[in-house]
Amino acid sequence: MKEFVRYDRQLMYKGKIIDIYKDYITTPAGKDVEWDFIGHKGAAAVVPVLEDGSIILVKQWRNSIDRFTLEIPAGGRESVNEDTKECAARELEEETGYRSDNIEFLQTIVPVAAYSQEKIDVYVARDLIPSKQHLDPDEFINIKKYQIKELVDMVLSNKIQDSKTAASIMAYYVKYCVHSQNA
Amino acid sequence: MKEFVRYDRQLMYKGKIIDIYKDYITTPAGKDVEWDFIGHKGAAAVVPVLEDGSIILVKQWRNSIDRFTLEIPAGGRESVNEDTKECAARELEEETGYRSDNIEFLQTIVPVAAYSQEKIDVYVARDLIPSKQHLDPDEFINIKKYQIKELVDMVLSNKIQDSKTAASIMAYYVKYCVHSQNA
Repeated sequence: MKEFVRYDRQLMYKGKIIDIYKDYITTPAGKDVEWDFIGHKGAAAVVPVLEDGSIILVKQWRNSIDRFTLEIPAGGRESVNEDTKECAARELEEETGYRSDNIEFLQTIVPVAAYSQEKIDVYVARDLIPSKQHLDPDEFINIKKYQIKELVDMVLSNKIQDSKTAASIMAYYVKYCVHSQNA
Repeated sequence: MKEFVRYDRQLMYKGKIIDIYKDYITTPAGKDVEWDFIGHKGAAAVVPVLEDGSIILVKQWRNSIDRFTLEIPAGGRESVNEDTKECAARELEEETGYRSDNIEFLQTIVPVAAYSQEKIDVYVARDLIPSKQHLDPDEFINIKKYQIKELVDMVLSNKIQDSKTAASIMAYYVKYCVHSQNA
């Protein structure tokens, strides 16, 4: 397949956490099109697993969809050079009040391949050590603990809809509960 | 927990498929903040299952992340009033060249709860009937077929990263392969 060729990218609006560009692209058919593009520094998220196997989620109000959500702890990188594992460790401690020296890569999630550059590297954190939650001034978060089977049921019954959280709960479940049982 | 209150929303930029707003919000602590908000009409996606159990994905180049992706067929609603099941049926036929009268709801995915209104209702389509692919002029798609176990391995080995696709493959696998085996 002949490739798409991007011949220009113009910043149209600088938001607080996202930048909006207009991309000028020549399609494989030779036609010039203009597409939306969102620039993003990248992010990290973490599935925090307590010793009894329960998983910590954060409950927070999400302005974009006007309701509370349950999500795995996550946050943006401070710069495009920040290691996502360090970002995950920081967000874990900030949002849940636990830290961990046992953080393992699970998967990368691209939330909106159609128009956003954002990638979220998701990790699993174990051997959690109680520390201190320190939220950003505009963050208001409650932490909640669930068994993995409850979480799987909450995804399948449409109670958890956040993409990184739904994908990560299911990936964690299949990798560490289903496949390891069959191994 | 006291609620966040949004007291204004201003359109900052009108893109081709997304609109960017600045939201003015009072936090539970009484502080006024400005947050990014992306307006979106909503979308639908579909896991197309062939008679032999294999699943159809679409391979396409994604400008936002500068590479080809494997995704379940998906697309935006034509209006905020369009039924997402109809949208899923249309995208199925347009992108894969199959249609179906057996389309069942799987889950809703919110790709970016942090700043976008977008919701994707995901369906499972069975009893596929060969029809005709009719892509948008700027769409260049190849269809690919995989067994579900291959797809699960591709998610767990980080080869499939698109959030709606990763989440839906895992949800489909757990609901129809793992749980039904245990039932």
